[in-house]
Amino acid sequence: MTTTLNASTHPLSDALLHRAKAVIPNAMYGHQDARGLWPGAPQFVSRTSGSRIWDADGHEYIDLLCSWGPIIHGYQHPRIEEAVNRQRQICDTANGPSEHFVTLAEKLVEVVEHADWAMFAKNGSDVTTLCLTIARAHTGRAIILVEEGTYHGALPWCNPDQTGVLPSDRAGLAYYTYNDLASVEKLVAEHSGDIAGIIVAPFRHDPAGSDLELADPAFAQGLRRICDENGAVLIVDEVRTGFRMSFGGSWEQYGVRPDLSSWSKAIGNGYPIAAVLGAEALRDAAGSFFVTGTFWFSAVPMVAALTSIALLEESDGVAHMFARGDQLVSGLREQATSYSLPVNVTGPATMPYLSFAGEPDHQFTLAWTAECAARGVFVHPKHNWFMSTALSEADVDAVLVATDAAFAEVAKRYF
Amino acid sequence: MTTTLNASTHPLSDALLHRAKAVIPNAMYGHQDARGLWPGAPQFVSRTSGSRIWDADGHEYIDLLCSWGPIIHGYQHPRIEEAVNRQRQICDTANGPSEHFVTLAEKLVEVVEHADWAMFAKNGSDVTTLCLTIARAHTGRAIILVEEGTYHGALPWCNPDQTGVLPSDRAGLAYYTYNDLASVEKLVAEHSGDIAGIIVAPFRHDPAGSDLELADPAFAQGLRRICDENGAVLIVDEVRTGFRMSFGGSWEQYGVRPDLSSWSKAIGNGYPIAAVLGAEALRDAAGSFFVTGTFWFSAVPMVAALTSIALLEESDGVAHMFARGDQLVSGLREQATSYSLPVNVTGPATMPYLSFAGEPDHQFTLAWTAECAARGVFVHPKHNWFMSTALSEADVDAVLVATDAAFAEVAKRYF
Repeated sequence: MTTTLNASTHPLSDALLHRAKAVIPNAMYGHQDARGLWPGAPQFVSRTSGSRIWDADGHEYIDLLCSWGPIIHGYQHPRIEEAVNRQRQICDTANGPSEHFVTLAEKLVEVVEHADWAMFAKNGSDVTTLCLTIARAHTGRAIILVEEGTYHGALPWCNPDQTGVLPSDRAGLAYYTYNDLASVEKLVAEHSGDIAGIIVAPFRHDPAGSDLELADPAFAQGLRRICDENGAVLIVDEVRTGFRMSFGGSWEQYGVRPDLSSWSKAIGNGYPIAAVLGAEALRDAAGSFFVTGTFWFSAVPMVAALTSIALLEESDGVAHMFARGDQLVSGLREQATSYSLPVNVTGPATMPYLSFAGEPDHQFTLAWTAECAARGVFVHPKHNWFMSTALSEADVDAVLVATDAAFAEVAKRYF
Repeated sequence: MTTTLNASTHPLSDALLHRAKAVIPNAMYGHQDARGLWPGAPQFVSRTSGSRIWDADGHEYIDLLCSWGPIIHGYQHPRIEEAVNRQRQICDTANGPSEHFVTLAEKLVEVVEHADWAMFAKNGSDVTTLCLTIARAHTGRAIILVEEGTYHGALPWCNPDQTGVLPSDRAGLAYYTYNDLASVEKLVAEHSGDIAGIIVAPFRHDPAGSDLELADPAFAQGLRRICDENGAVLIVDEVRTGFRMSFGGSWEQYGVRPDLSSWSKAIGNGYPIAAVLGAEALRDAAGSFFVTGTFWFSAVPMVAALTSIALLEESDGVAHMFARGDQLVSGLREQATSYSLPVNVTGPATMPYLSFAGEPDHQFTLAWTAECAARGVFVHPKHNWFMSTALSEADVDAVLVATDAAFAEVAKRYF
């Protein structure tokens, strides 16, 4: 097959989209808007299982997006589903938490090296916001240093889109450049004595299809030193990275432990949960104010999380994901070289991203992902992908058959 | 039984609490913290079913709190669970939404009179915040009028607890007094031409054990008029009230339709979901910016919501809840009178709250709820309760037996 998928191949998805136009602004919004994918991509999903998803018209894909991160053991992993099914018949959302609230906090404190305590919420934004509040409560200071242009959630303070947002919503922020310690030092000097903390992602993943950039260990270590010297709180945002760079904190490999970290996506294999993890010194500040959410204490996502973490531990899931990621990334690089295509594959092997160097408006990447999709492989043209433990070596081999054909098609059409 | 429950009656809950102290700041946080209940209340829940919950030590309660609102048909309602169980085996969190995303938007637009479109999220805070952003995007203005001291969620802008919060986080707000139209008119004059909107709850439910106050219809109508005269957006926060004052918008009874409304708790009978509903005029503004959340498009809570709304519709669930609420409230008032106790029962009958007039630090209310709990009835001493369609006439009769004995005990001890 050499044709790009177009709207006519997804009549059921398109019919749903037509209905959606009447009752949802622009028919769809947010990161799952299919207009962020290749032209004519289907908007709706009808089925998921293991490493596969099916769009609303029944087309099957090997899924390398994992629901933008949450699915770390494949969809409907039998052991997680069994545990969930048992728990949901006993107790989920209730007047108080279940025992699993405590057990999950204990488990995360055991697994994540810097953590002495945990708090749970629902969204990534809930916990990045909580980290700022805790840092400000702890220090009595205002300013949080944030990477310029990055995304820590979709609330006014952290959403790169500033429509409907007031300048005052971001008054407590100052902006540094990733991997540029001098830009951080400059802000520390400018806001001397008023730096509450620094928030940073374990690797640079800016919105809208930027290539990924790993942290320079000296940058990570420098942030730790600057925080220590200035009594500021180091916050590592693990919402995207958690349990995919390490079975523990992502910056352990650089010898850097944050004071606070925010987690969400991969904790519960698709069940909605988020967590703040913190060091002992931040415990009092974390307990010094009222914060809550209607569904933050529900038992089912906590049981899913406990089972998911146990699976990672038992099977060395992170190593498995790195092995599959390395297989994929090295295969993609070989293929690109064989077609003499100017391809960048960036990011950790468990969360890679592929783009074409110097392309206008992601044109070649969009074409390439469309060709992958036409061959049953779901990869995102403007966002990093995610490995899962459900991907087998044979799955990645099958992915590479599709990506090779997609490279051939792009080479023929554009190069 | 005439003794107040104390810590020793909950050894398993207390043992969990002891473990929690090591790994969670203060062992617990937020609205489900049992320190907000009667002294010695159990923190942990082990089981739920229909109108009943069991604490971690196996004590059974008729539950009048409904998980602070979400449970509108009782825990694990068979038809909702059946639909959920089917859906979760097909697809929940995925790369895109399922068809239920569209069907639920269509259903809410059909049921809620002012709504022409819907957007979904997870927390109440997500959607109250979204309403502010939409109002500001629509008007290009900054100021939102908010009731002084009230709660629209636990984010910096709407959390009455200002620890770790910057003054700038609330720079775009100005504060009126509920049911005091003059206080609103005064702010409109002060911020002439810069009022983006007014956010208001359908009835006054301030935090920390205040009695409830129904909206004066003239106040509701006055807010609508003020918004119309000033090109401002009327936002009704239905997070707590949705589907418990009306099968539709809570202020329909006053002839008032908001431009935007925020919903969450009772939409999905305990499954996590929130929604913004909006009028046609706000559609473009709602679609003018990027907003999203990792779990906002999951299918299972949408299937739960569709089934829950169908149940409300088929069985006239709101009328059922009002009937049970009226039975409860009139019974409580008669009992209080019979013991000559100075009791206030306030709020809509579906969300009543009981307190003792003039008591210091909720002393009598705490004692009374402790006596209720000792007799197997779970009511909150500092927050309104919630009726559900799972409560039978016999359940409320059983509740009234317990409350009568609790009144007798409080009368004997304190009056």
